[in-house]
This record gives sequence, structure tokens and C-alpha cells, in this order.
Amino acid sequence: MALEGRSLISIFDFSDREIEAVFKLAEEMAQHTRGRVGLAEGLIMCTLFYEPSTRTRLSFETAMQRLGGGVISVADASVTSVAKGETIADTVRIVESYADVIVIRNPLEGSARVAADYASVPVINAGDGAHEHPTQTLVDLYTIRQEKGRLKGVKVALVGDLRHGRTAHSLAFGLARFGAEVTLVAPPGLEMPAHLATRLDKEFNCRPAQYHSLSEMVTGEEPLKGRSGRQRALTSEVLSLFDAVYVTRVQKERFPSEQDYQKAKSSYEITEELISKARPDALVMHPLPRVDELAHAVDRDPRAVYFRQAAYGLPVRMALLAAVLGRRPARVRKARKGDYRPKPRHEVDFRKVADLRCPNARCVTNHEVYLSPHFTFVEHVPETIACAYCEYEMKAPLGPEAAQ
Amino acid sequence: MALEGRSLISIFDFSDREIEAVFKLAEEMAQHTRGRVGLAEGLIMCTLFYEPSTRTRLSFETAMQRLGGGVISVADASVTSVAKGETIADTVRIVESYADVIVIRNPLEGSARVAADYASVPVINAGDGAHEHPTQTLVDLYTIRQEKGRLKGVKVALVGDLRHGRTAHSLAFGLARFGAEVTLVAPPGLEMPAHLATRLDKEFNCRPAQYHSLSEMVTGEEPLKGRSGRQRALTSEVLSLFDAVYVTRVQKERFPSEQDYQKAKSSYEITEELISKARPDALVMHPLPRVDELAHAVDRDPRAVYFRQAAYGLPVRMALLAAVLGRRPARVRKARKGDYRPKPRHEVDFRKVADLRCPNARCVTNHEVYLSPHFTFVEHVPETIACAYCEYEMKAPLGPEAAQ
Amino acid sequence: MALEGRSLISIFDFSDREIEAVFKLAEEMAQHTRGRVGLAEGLIMCTLFYEPSTRTRLSFETAMQRLGGGVISVADASVTSVAKGETIADTVRIVESYADVIVIRNPLEGSARVAADYASVPVINAGDGAHEHPTQTLVDLYTIRQEKGRLKGVKVALVGDLRHGRTAHSLAFGLARFGAEVTLVAPPGLEMPAHLATRLDKEFNCRPAQYHSLSEMVTGEEPLKGRSGRQRALTSEVLSLFDAVYVTRVQKERFPSEQDYQKAKSSYEITEELISKARPDALVMHPLPRVDELAHAVDRDPRAVYFRQAAYGLPVRMALLAAVLGRRPARVRKARKGDYRPKPRHEVDFRKVADLRCPNARCVTNHEVYLSPHFTFVEHVPETIACAYCEYEMKAPLGPEAAQ
Repeated sequence: MALEGRSLISIFDFSDREIEAVFKLAEEMAQHTRGRVGLAEGLIMCTLFYEPSTRTRLSFETAMQRLGGGVISVADASVTSVAKGETIADTVRIVESYADVIVIRNPLEGSARVAADYASVPVINAGDGAHEHPTQTLVDLYTIRQEKGRLKGVKVALVGDLRHGRTAHSLAFGLARFGAEVTLVAPPGLEMPAHLATRLDKEFNCRPAQYHSLSEMVTGEEPLKGRSGRQRALTSEVLSLFDAVYVTRVQKERFPSEQDYQKAKSSYEITEELISKARPDALVMHPLPRVDELAHAVDRDPRAVYFRQAAYGLPVRMALLAAVLGRRPARVRKARKGDYRPKPRHEVDFRKVADLRCPNARCVTNHEVYLSPHFTFVEHVPETIACAYCEYEMKAPLGPEAAQ
Repeated sequence: MALEGRSLISIFDFSDREIEAVFKLAEEMAQHTRGRVGLAEGLIMCTLFYEPSTRTRLSFETAMQRLGGGVISVADASVTSVAKGETIADTVRIVESYADVIVIRNPLEGSARVAADYASVPVINAGDGAHEHPTQTLVDLYTIRQEKGRLKGVKVALVGDLRHGRTAHSLAFGLARFGAEVTLVAPPGLEMPAHLATRLDKEFNCRPAQYHSLSEMVTGEEPLKGRSGRQRALTSEVLSLFDAVYVTRVQKERFPSEQDYQKAKSSYEITEELISKARPDALVMHPLPRVDELAHAVDRDPRAVYFRQAAYGLPVRMALLAAVLGRRPARVRKARKGDYRPKPRHEVDFRKVADLRCPNARCVTNHEVYLSPHFTFVEHVPETIACAYCEYEMKAPLGPEAAQ
Repeated sequence: MALEGRSLISIFDFSDREIEAVFKLAEEMAQHTRGRVGLAEGLIMCTLFYEPSTRTRLSFETAMQRLGGGVISVADASVTSVAKGETIADTVRIVESYADVIVIRNPLEGSARVAADYASVPVINAGDGAHEHPTQTLVDLYTIRQEKGRLKGVKVALVGDLRHGRTAHSLAFGLARFGAEVTLVAPPGLEMPAHLATRLDKEFNCRPAQYHSLSEMVTGEEPLKGRSGRQRALTSEVLSLFDAVYVTRVQKERFPSEQDYQKAKSSYEITEELISKARPDALVMHPLPRVDELAHAVDRDPRAVYFRQAAYGLPVRMALLAAVLGRRPARVRKARKGDYRPKPRHEVDFRKVADLRCPNARCVTNHEVYLSPHFTFVEHVPETIACAYCEYEMKAPLGPEAAQ
């Protein structure tokens, strides 16, 4: 399946082989991150950002210009036509007549899917609220692949808020798909949601050990299983177990109180001293921007690769743009047994049997009136359906038969 | 008269033949809306927007880049030097040393004229408050011309707020100039101002029928002439009379009460069912963004051309830029009898006889202190003068002789 | 010393010969201000503006595009990641992987120095609060050089707020370095700070006459020496003494009361009548934007060169970018005796002996936690140290020996 004309809304939209093809192309693009390669000559990308994001927008705009293409940009659409009440569907149907590819960031969950549904040009999701941010995941995977030479078998600890962090969820699935060994470390209350852990297991045969703090591994404790975790400090000794430690941003607003935040923060802060005891070739990663969870002093340590990680964003996005624009056909190899491939979506319109709306207040279907809510049955989880836009999961009101 | 170096502030700045020359050039540009044609190589356009407008700005920026030129942009100047009190005259005299053409949007009426007066490079008005938005008018006319093959004799209904809608006013004049047959349909209180109707008649020999709702035409009622209109629903039958129905945005804030708005809105909403009964080859047009006056379901109907209309904005703006930049001389044919041509402006400085200011609070002359108000006598309307900037009309304080 | 790879944070970062080399190059670039010269082909500049500035940003973006390069832009970073708490150090270490040169504007004093310390690509300071704006100074000097044919011996009056005006301070030093004859004219309370006058004298052998109003010179009064000045009107007669009158913006918020502001404003306003009596070949300069200190009517006078001054910003910034990007090696001639050359900075870390922080609340060291305050001993001023970032001066807590 060629990548030309394809949209990337979720990391699940591309097969394993397609992701590998993008990575191969990114290696080639890496030679042009300081020059200009004429692959997108005469083409225009629109960055349609409904909330500001320096890093992601600049990365895409640099990528397009390094490819020789042009850029039109809405750096903060919250102050434009949207204020006049224009829908996403209308906006993209106008922008598609100007631009050859649309990069969209919108706080409504599922909004990028709506954009892709209505646009006749490829749409790339640059973040739709707490839902997905697939190019960040590609960059994270590519960083490990380039720094460690492979993804299969690489031991990765995901540390921080694993409940709300979209980058951590997508990365967990991405790592699982490519055979990395994942460990999850999260403060009590911020663990990865159970249904995601279930899906990791059932769909990708990945059963990550889960801890409340890295130090638990040292004391030989069993991985947590729903027990109320004791709070202990992250210790350096256990770091020697990992090829990569991926630290995610701990967002203050996710905690019930300032006190809880301070407690979690101090237990998880990555310091220079701590990191000095990790494996000499370990990677300390972070999606950036950081707040308090990663000390500035760590920057000096050769294991700190987060600025390189940000830099990898350029060749990866150049490769992605070149591929979906059809200007540099990515060579997608034949799928191997066990490879993930996107399946056709079996969407169920429950309006026939019930007036069902998505209960997620941030879901795009609750903000754009022309959309009719659709749902899909969640594989491996009985009697559960997910919103076809924001993927919010809930109990099915009726069985699959009833909805046929 | 060549178009090189010319500014476009009002649709009246270009003669009929000049507009046709732009349209001819637009047909040529239409072949390059997905590529890049090197006409503006080495030239730079500045989009100087004092209020945000995604659509218009992106359309111009795409046009300039498709022509091979560069763009510098102020997406929302309300937060820049203007806050430090800089005048429009100062800003354009600085920007002209950077850019080869300036595209300005500013909420003050007459502001674009001020920009053109002070700049040594061509200025294009991308909207000066409620005053003018001439490239929208060009795009509207071009859409009808391309879709119906001609403008002369085409039957067009303008529906909606015809009192405040600048696009509707300009379009009415544009259609009149090219011999289209215009019908005006507006809710009571939102009819086209009388002096504009007078001008349509006297200057362009156009006497549009005016209705309060399209259904009145079915009942055989006489067009309204100042009577207080009864409110009736827009009906489908009458749609068969028109080649094009141009729906304009009904702005809530124009109505005295929420109730009045709801009444007007429901009478004028264009629905799928309604439109299905129009002529198979009719055009449903809208300048976008829409709010409630045009149902999303209509999008499916082949008669809905408003997204194509938006797309026509690209070749038209490419043509306009290429022409005023002198990179692709538009071939302007000799004027024919009856053609509109811009006349020299006879401006009157009433300061000699009276300390006269423009009464329009949104007029640029009431905000930029260095400007001295000037006025012109309005043709065909006795004892009436108009502000030379915002064209606000008022009774002349003295006769033409006195002001000489 | 070549300019390739160099940052420009303060006018003191470049030697006299290096500035001359930039000016030579600017003369060459002046031939391309309406075209495009392929010097920066394939390179990208990032304008990273934490506060909006139309003029400076557009000038740089035009310069880069006229050089054939690309631009990525953050027009107002105050609404982006910075709000998430990202440091300047982090931001530039990410942006450097996209862009080949960074142009930064940030209200924190010393912030541009921080950016240059952390970035591996050249950083150009486009204004760091009240501290420095070196490209404005280059443009000012270049304007006089081009209009008068030289800088040496040219008589320049700096008029206005000389206490807070960063452009005036830098210009005074720039003029002194190139041998111009400087006169300072400022309302009482807004005189140039004493330590700057001292430095002008000791380091550059420049002892500008200082007046409270230009008219004092006519009355034969001695230049002020700390006396409380009487307020007298600026008169036209004295203008014949100057080759250039550089008027700076008088900012209302600098005055203790509205009354004080009105008094100063009316004494210093440059009017058409006043300027008409200056030398026929005098230059009236202003950094723009102006407020009330320079009448619009002056624009008509051929001596008003401030719009040309703004236009000179383009070739100067083109030359600077081409030079630091290494695409057009500026030929720097050998230094002559007495030339200014940047000296190695001897920074003192007083933390060893005292917990010393910069007392300037707007200093970057008081906002970016990872920075450790450093200080330098001020030459010619006994027992005085200056913050190594914002250059705020204060009494040294200990002698130089103690800090070794």
C-alpha cells in the first residue's frame, strides 16, 4: 500500500512496514536537514493550528521548506474565522483548494479525523487534544531506532503520567508493535488505563511490568496489580536495567492537590546524580517542553538525548511529507506474519436503535453539529464500544447484532 | 490603461475591460493552481492584516507562492506597532521598502484608500470594515462567469442581509456593470439602502426587483416599494427563476432582538429540500464562512458551488497579483460604449467653508489624525456628498459652487 | 576575524572594522533590495519574537527572502510554549536543529545573550527589552554614512529621552567609535546616565556637550553639568549646527505625571516650521514608530530621511545575515590603531564569596532558573561591577582580588 495521498491521524493508520518505510526515507532525508532537496518543489503545506505550538509547527514548516515546498500558516486559528463559528469541515474544504497537504492541530479530540474525512488532500494530525499526536510517536520510535540501532528487544521504561499522556500511550503501542520490551512506571493514580494495558497484551502480545516507582524493582517487589502503591523515590540502581528511559511531562493540573503534585514531582525528578548511574549507553528521552521533572543539569550528560530527539523530528517529518505528497515514493516492504496492518473500520450507527452520543465533552462530535456520532466495537473487550472519532470507550447499549 | 502598478481598493477602481482582462488571465492561472509558475520570482508580497482572516490571507499567500514569489505577513497587526500608536501612513511607507505589493485588511472604513495614497507600491484592499472587499467581488463574478459561461443576462438572486453586507453591495454593482439581471431579497429592515438602488438605476441602468422573501414572487405580489414587508418563507418554486442564488451571511448582531434574528434566520435558511427544487443547473453561492443560513446538508447537492467559489479565489488572486506586479501584462481591450471606467475624483475640501468631518465613527479620517477629510459630490443624488475615504453619504452643507 | 558563525547581541560584539565590512556588503546588497540574490539558498532563518514587532521582524524576513533563504517564524511567542514554562535555553536548542540562524526578540534584558550562549547557530538580537537592539544601531550609522558620505566628524544631535532609550545609547557609542561629534539634548530627568557619559569619554575619547534644550546653545549657555535644567523650547536657529538630528521616541510612561509629559513633549516636538530652518542638507532621523515628537507635516521636507532610514534596514540586515551565515564572506580589514575590538570577557562569579544576584528585576537571570549570575568589573569606574547578561551596574561587594 503506497503512502501517497494518505492521511496520518493515528499511529494505527500506518502498518508496521509503512512506518519502517518512512524511517528508511528519514535516514535519507537526514542528509538534507541543513540544505534543501527539491522533492516538494511547487507544493504548498498549510499548518492549521487551532492552538499554538512552536515546536511542532516550526518542525513541519522547516521540513516542508527543506523539501523545497512553500508554507501557508495559521499559527493560532482560535482568533480567526473559527470565532465566527466556522466548522472544521468547511475550513478544510477551503484550505484544500490552496494547499497540497494540511497539518492540523486542534484541541477537540477526533478533530483531525474529521479534517481527513472532508479534505481531498492528505491530512497530518499534529495533536488533537488528549487523543493522538502520531508524528511525535514516529519521532520517538525513530530516535530509539537510530540511537540503539534497532527497536526489537530494546528495554524502555516509560516514566511519569501514563494516564493522560497521549505521547506515552502511543509510544507504548508503537514499541509493542516493533517488539521492544516496555516497563511502565507511574505515580499512583496516574497509571496507564486498564483497557490500554489489555489491548497491549491481547493485540500485540506485550505485557509490560508496571511499577509505582522505579525503586520498587530494586526491592524485588512484584509489579503492581491494582494495589495502592507506596510512594518511593526513583533510584539510580534500577536504571541499569534499561536501554532507554522515556520521561513524560507531569502536568500539575492532573493532580488533586498541590501537595500530591509536589510529592509525585520530587519522586520522579530526573537529576544529574541519578542519571549518572544509568548504563553508559542508556538514552534519557523527553518529548519536551519539560517543566520540573527533568533537571537542567542533566543536559550535560551524554545520555541526555532529548535535544537530538527533537532534531530527529526534522528528517522524520520531511520523510512523511515527501511520502504522502507522492514526491518520493516510500518503499513499503511486504508485510510479515504478525505485522500490524490497519483494518477496515466497522462503524456502528447506534442512532438506529438509540440516541447515543459520545460522553466525552472534548470529543469533536459534541462541538461540530453536522457530525453524526459513530462507534466501533472494541476488539478483545466484551460489550465495549469506542467513539469512532475520539476513541472514548464505553459499555455498548446493545449487542453487535442489534446494531446491524 | 495597463494594470501594472495599480491599486485595487474598490471594484470601481477597475474598468469593465480591466476586470475582463483579469478574468482572462485567471483562466490561464487556473492551470497552475497546483503547481508553481515563475511569474513573481524575486518579488515579495506583504499581507498586512489588522484583523484576522484565515481565508482571505491564505488565499493571497498561496497565490503569491504559486506565482513563485515570497510572502511576509502580519496576521494580526492589532497586537503590534499599531498598539504603539503607529499610523497606517507610516506603516505602509515602511512596508513598501520591503514588499513589492501590499495586501491590507483593516476594520477602519476607508483605510485601504489611505494605504494606497501613501504607498509607492500597489495596494490591494482585502476588506476595510463594512466598506469594500473587492477581490471577493471579483471571485463572485468570476465564479458565475466560469460556471454559466457568461455574466450578461444571467439571473441572480441576492438573498440575505443586503443592508450591511458589503459583498452583496459590491456584487450587485459588479453584476449590473456586466449586464446580469439582479433580484434582491432581504428581510424587512435589512433591504439594500435606497441610495445604492438609485445609483444602480441611474448609473448602470439596473432596476432590480426587491422582495422581502422569495415566496412573494410566487404569490405574484409586486416587488416591495417601501411597504413594511410581511414575513414569509422562502419557497422552492421561485428558485426555478434563477441561474444563481447568492446567499449572504446574516449577522446576529445586526438584528434588534434575538427573536427578530430567529425569525429572519428560519425564513431564509437554505435547506437541502428547498434547493433540490431549484433548476438543475442553478448555482447556490455563499461567500463563506456561513453560520446558520445555509444547511450543511446542502453541500451534497451538485448545485452547491460555494467551495468551488472559494477555490476560484486562487486563480483570480494570482491573476490580480501578476497584473499589478507587471509580471504578466493583462491585455485590456478597448472600452466599448456604455462601459464603466473610473472617473477622476473631484474632491471637495469643505474646510474652506465649514469644519466638516465625516460623521461615520468607523471612518479612517476619525482615527488617523494627519488626514484631512475630503468629500465628493454624489452623482445623480442632489445635494449629497460622500466621504472620499469611506463613502459615507450625507447632505451637502453647501452647494458645489460654494466649495470651489 | 571572520563574521561567519558569529552572533550579534550588542554593538560591542563587532569591531569597528567588522562593522565597516558589514556596511561595505550592505552597499552591494542595496542593488538587490527589489530582486533576489541567491546567497542564502537552502538556508532557513527563525524569527523568534517573544513580543510583537512588525517592523523589525518584517525587515529580517524580507532580508532573508531577498537572499533566497527560507523563514520560519514565531510572531508572538508569549502565547506559545513559553506559557508552558519553557526556558530560552531549551527553545533555542530545539530551534537550532531547524534553523541556520536565529533572530530573537525578548523583553527580558540579557535574554539574547543567553540564546547565543546555548545555540550552536548564530543568534541576532532584535531587541532584549531596554538593553540592546544592535541592528537598529547599525542601520542608524549606515544611514548617516550613506547620506553624508562618512561618519567621521559628522555633527549629530541626539534629542529626546536619553535616559531610557536604548537606541540612543547604542547610537552614541557607535558614533563615538567612528569619530562623529555628538551632542546630547534631553529633558531634565531624562539625561543620559552619568556612567555612560563617563565611558564615552574614557573609552572612546568622546565628550558630548549636553543640553536640556537645543535653545540653550543659542543663548550661549554652558552645557549642563548636573544643574537642574530650565525648560526652554527647542529653536530652529541651532539646527544649523548639525548634520543630523536624531529624534527618539519620548515614552509617556517614563514621566512622573501627564503634566511633565506634556511639557517635555511640547518643547521637543519637531515641527515643519522648525525643521525648515535647519541646514538644507541636514538629516532628520527617527527610529520609528513615532508618537507625538515628530509632526506628520515634516514628512514633506526633503531633510526628513526617516523612511529612507527604515529602508536602509533591508540592505544592512541582508549583509549581516549573509556574513554570519558565511555565504558572502565580509572582508574585514586589518584593525587600525585606536580601533575598538571586543575584548575577552573576564566574568566573576561572586557566588564564591557572596550570594549575589542581579538587582534588575527585568534581567533574564531573575527569570530563568538554570542561569547562575555572573558579573564583570566595569573598566574606568572604580569598584563597580556589571551583570554579565543585562549589564546593570552596581557597587562591587568585594574587590577584584577577593573574587579571583
